[in-house]
Amino acid sequence: MPITRRTLLAGTALTMTTPLGEMALAQTSSSSTSGSQASSQAPGFYRYMVSDVEVTAVNDGFAKRPLEGFIRNAELSQVQEAVRAAFLPIDALPITFTGLVLRKGNQLTVIDTGNGDLGGPTSGNWMTNFRAAGFDPAQVTTVVISHFHGDHINGLRLKDGTAVFPKAEIMAPAPEWDFWMDDGRMNQAPEGMKSAFQNVRRVFGPVAGDVKRYAWDKEIVPGLTSVAAPGHTPGHTAYILSSGGGKLMIMSDVTNHPALFVSNPDWAAVFDMDADQARQTRHRMLDMAASERAQVAFYHAPFPATGHIAKEGGKFRFVPVQWSPTI
Amino acid sequence: MPITRRTLLAGTALTMTTPLGEMALAQTSSSSTSGSQASSQAPGFYRYMVSDVEVTAVNDGFAKRPLEGFIRNAELSQVQEAVRAAFLPIDALPITFTGLVLRKGNQLTVIDTGNGDLGGPTSGNWMTNFRAAGFDPAQVTTVVISHFHGDHINGLRLKDGTAVFPKAEIMAPAPEWDFWMDDGRMNQAPEGMKSAFQNVRRVFGPVAGDVKRYAWDKEIVPGLTSVAAPGHTPGHTAYILSSGGGKLMIMSDVTNHPALFVSNPDWAAVFDMDADQARQTRHRMLDMAASERAQVAFYHAPFPATGHIAKEGGKFRFVPVQWSPTI
Repeated sequence: MPITRRTLLAGTALTMTTPLGEMALAQTSSSSTSGSQASSQAPGFYRYMVSDVEVTAVNDGFAKRPLEGFIRNAELSQVQEAVRAAFLPIDALPITFTGLVLRKGNQLTVIDTGNGDLGGPTSGNWMTNFRAAGFDPAQVTTVVISHFHGDHINGLRLKDGTAVFPKAEIMAPAPEWDFWMDDGRMNQAPEGMKSAFQNVRRVFGPVAGDVKRYAWDKEIVPGLTSVAAPGHTPGHTAYILSSGGGKLMIMSDVTNHPALFVSNPDWAAVFDMDADQARQTRHRMLDMAASERAQVAFYHAPFPATGHIAKEGGKFRFVPVQWSPTI
Repeated sequence: MPITRRTLLAGTALTMTTPLGEMALAQTSSSSTSGSQASSQAPGFYRYMVSDVEVTAVNDGFAKRPLEGFIRNAELSQVQEAVRAAFLPIDALPITFTGLVLRKGNQLTVIDTGNGDLGGPTSGNWMTNFRAAGFDPAQVTTVVISHFHGDHINGLRLKDGTAVFPKAEIMAPAPEWDFWMDDGRMNQAPEGMKSAFQNVRRVFGPVAGDVKRYAWDKEIVPGLTSVAAPGHTPGHTAYILSSGGGKLMIMSDVTNHPALFVSNPDWAAVFDMDADQARQTRHRMLDMAASERAQVAFYHAPFPATGHIAKEGGKFRFVPVQWSPTI
């Protein structure tokens, strides 16, 4: 077997990607260290159409999250049981990162950018997968950001300061901007939160005057409407992509891993800054998706991170799409 | 959008792949006709380890099966409801084809070969995906066949007679061989079945003396044990891949699409030659998978066609694996 397995512990680089320092988790993973094509995975992109809009899900790998301390309001044994029911590893949950690329005519829109070069050892492959999908960062016309956690924004700017999408208009939720760019709030924040404020400045500071701040319930790109989804962060935003008869609900972090939070929408992940508000948002959005039988995309669902929400006996269930070789 | 959509009806080429003529279905599909990389899907292969054996699932596309007449013992409305619950197309079910490649040291074993160049317009990409995964057909040491339906054996030999795996030992289940190679049985078969008998001769005839006929409950390749799974066909075979502490139950066609037959194991697909026997086999194998929490692979499950079987309240449920960028 040309596979060597290794176990890596997260280096300090992860710190900058951690929302509120809460994602300071041990990144334990096994990965192939062989360079031969014969032992690598296929590129992590997946395409589907929403009417005349071509959507490409682009994966940025995953991070492993220990279950202990992950859910504020559930016993560890309950969380372990949910993980076991989904046949996922019981020690640490692999949480994936999958952003979207929308193409319509010459309009190329990226929604959330992954960890860039600031992630852990099992993330940071967004750009490789984006290029494997045939895209060039210089062709991107718009980058839409859902919220300011590091795993969504760090792909905008490399550690060395380079802007990754040189020609793109950057669009950020106005309420998110107002919260994180408030220096007074940063200065009063607990130490563990300060790095998240500083990271927002690292990413957006050099282009602060050019960032377009968008409101909720607006069509911000042709066909793409912003939807208020606060709780996870103050300005956390979901979207509805609507084109012709097609519709996609882009849920951002309305839930973290669906195996936990679609089945248990009342559970509060430590990443949710306002747990009660996040819970209300989650119920509202899941109910909407289920009643409309709309296709959904979640940033943290298993790749390709799209499916539907079933509601049976008052319980929600995430049903992944069937992979198709045709688009 | 550089995507052109077209709808194609199956040509007569499909006839040869149809078990008993029953798969003579209208292949209606949309597919990308653009040659540009930017509008194609990533290659259809997926790797995972079973202890020290590297398993690669290789997709051969799909065929669309109209729901009408598909299940012998269920009302169309019940079938439609099952399809609807899985958020699959209500008019015709896309049934995928995914074979396996096992690599351990220099031993490269292919289990079932796809439709070769005799499938419909949305299948026949097994070899493209196999090569994309870094494999060469001349390196294959063993081809193991689960049963003699065209979508499992046609990849062994091109229409023009060329053997696809020139150096491989071909292994076939002895009871399957005895059934299909019996000329008396072929001559007495109804007209609609004769083409299936003839196709078996087309594929195996030129190498009939070299095909190794294996029995059930034997380790036929190191780590790979044949398991009796009759009903779908008389010699239909499943496998257990066991290596170190790892185990994979390779279910072949114990079920067709899990959305229908894992949830409803008593339903009889028209492809099952002995419906009662197939039902007994299905219950036995699903119970074994559920009680052992073993990873399973189904030839006709959505790609990458691997997951686990949950049993809750007496009902089975297929839980797909979470895609991982690392192997």
